[in-house]
Amino acid sequence: MASTLPKSLQELLKGLQILPGVGPKTAQRMALHLLVKKRRAGVKLANDLKIALDSIVECRLCRNFAEETLCSICLDQNRDRTILSIIESPLDLVAFEALEEYRGLYFLLLGRISPMEGVFPEHIGLDLLERRFAKESFREVVLATNSTIEGEMTAQFISKLAAKYKIPTSRLAHGLPMGSELEHLDRLTLRYAFDGRKNMDGLDHSRS
Amino acid sequence: MASTLPKSLQELLKGLQILPGVGPKTAQRMALHLLVKKRRAGVKLANDLKIALDSIVECRLCRNFAEETLCSICLDQNRDRTILSIIESPLDLVAFEALEEYRGLYFLLLGRISPMEGVFPEHIGLDLLERRFAKESFREVVLATNSTIEGEMTAQFISKLAAKYKIPTSRLAHGLPMGSELEHLDRLTLRYAFDGRKNMDGLDHSRS
Repeated sequence: MASTLPKSLQELLKGLQILPGVGPKTAQRMALHLLVKKRRAGVKLANDLKIALDSIVECRLCRNFAEETLCSICLDQNRDRTILSIIESPLDLVAFEALEEYRGLYFLLLGRISPMEGVFPEHIGLDLLERRFAKESFREVVLATNSTIEGEMTAQFISKLAAKYKIPTSRLAHGLPMGSELEHLDRLTLRYAFDGRKNMDGLDHSRS
Repeated sequence: MASTLPKSLQELLKGLQILPGVGPKTAQRMALHLLVKKRRAGVKLANDLKIALDSIVECRLCRNFAEETLCSICLDQNRDRTILSIIESPLDLVAFEALEEYRGLYFLLLGRISPMEGVFPEHIGLDLLERRFAKESFREVVLATNSTIEGEMTAQFISKLAAKYKIPTSRLAHGLPMGSELEHLDRLTLRYAFDGRKNMDGLDHSRS
């Protein structure tokens, strides 16, 4: 970056590049946009960012984002406290809640087991999860980690942990995503979809 | 956005979307990244943004970003004050300076004439520019606006303005961009390149 730019602008350009997917060019475009067209909104953004970083903590029960000791879901007395979904990130929680069907609790890993990246069970809150398994009475733990190698590995690990406390676990179904075409599907997904095929006619195929 | 998210996070997600090219999904990714992985850098970014917006003003002579009344280029006594390049944005200035060849001054339009978007001459600082034409003695004004319809229109307009003060104007050359292939070039660029062709042999073609 040319030294002809004001020092504070150079700092801003460096700062913007901590955002995911933002390189020098995008940072320039963003800074320019803020300085030329969005000064007032930019000041508000700086403020919002500071407030969020200052006030958002991890819920002590589920590790969801919260502004108090407990998050709004753990505090909600209308949720079913016997079913717990294990998810990787707060964005997954947003996706789940958008279904407007699930009424249980969550536990957030804020990551996944990934020995390659140096992420082990102790880094994703499993000590806290195990304490909950020991203390609370869950009739089902839904393993809703991503369908990646790391996500599967993490689900396996937690399933074994739950078994120690005799808590039944389930895993989200694998199969064709809606709107997909078979020819573009990877083999593993197709195999899961085939192995998990269901009757369409209502007849009992095992007896016929 | 689900109401299960803390209020301060919802504000941050809204705020991030004032950035160019950032929609709800990208804002979520950015907020998550800041909250989970980059808290300290995020606080610094909030601070950098506030400082930049508080301290950066327009240079009174050329409208470049500055932290004082005048920008570092207008203050630089080693620059050639008889040649003025008219550019659209501070990013163009960075590109020009990277050449390490140009030693004149700049004037920034921070836009371009675009009647379609309601941008007229008075919105791009041409009153200030005309006052400089009247007062200072430029031997050349380089019209370095973008090669778009609006950029060309703006260059035309300023060329006429300079003519009122008997100031010679020039325009950046059109032609093949380096590394381009003829078959992929638009017709207008090819025509400019052909019309502006130059001798390669050093002989005087007009006499042969």
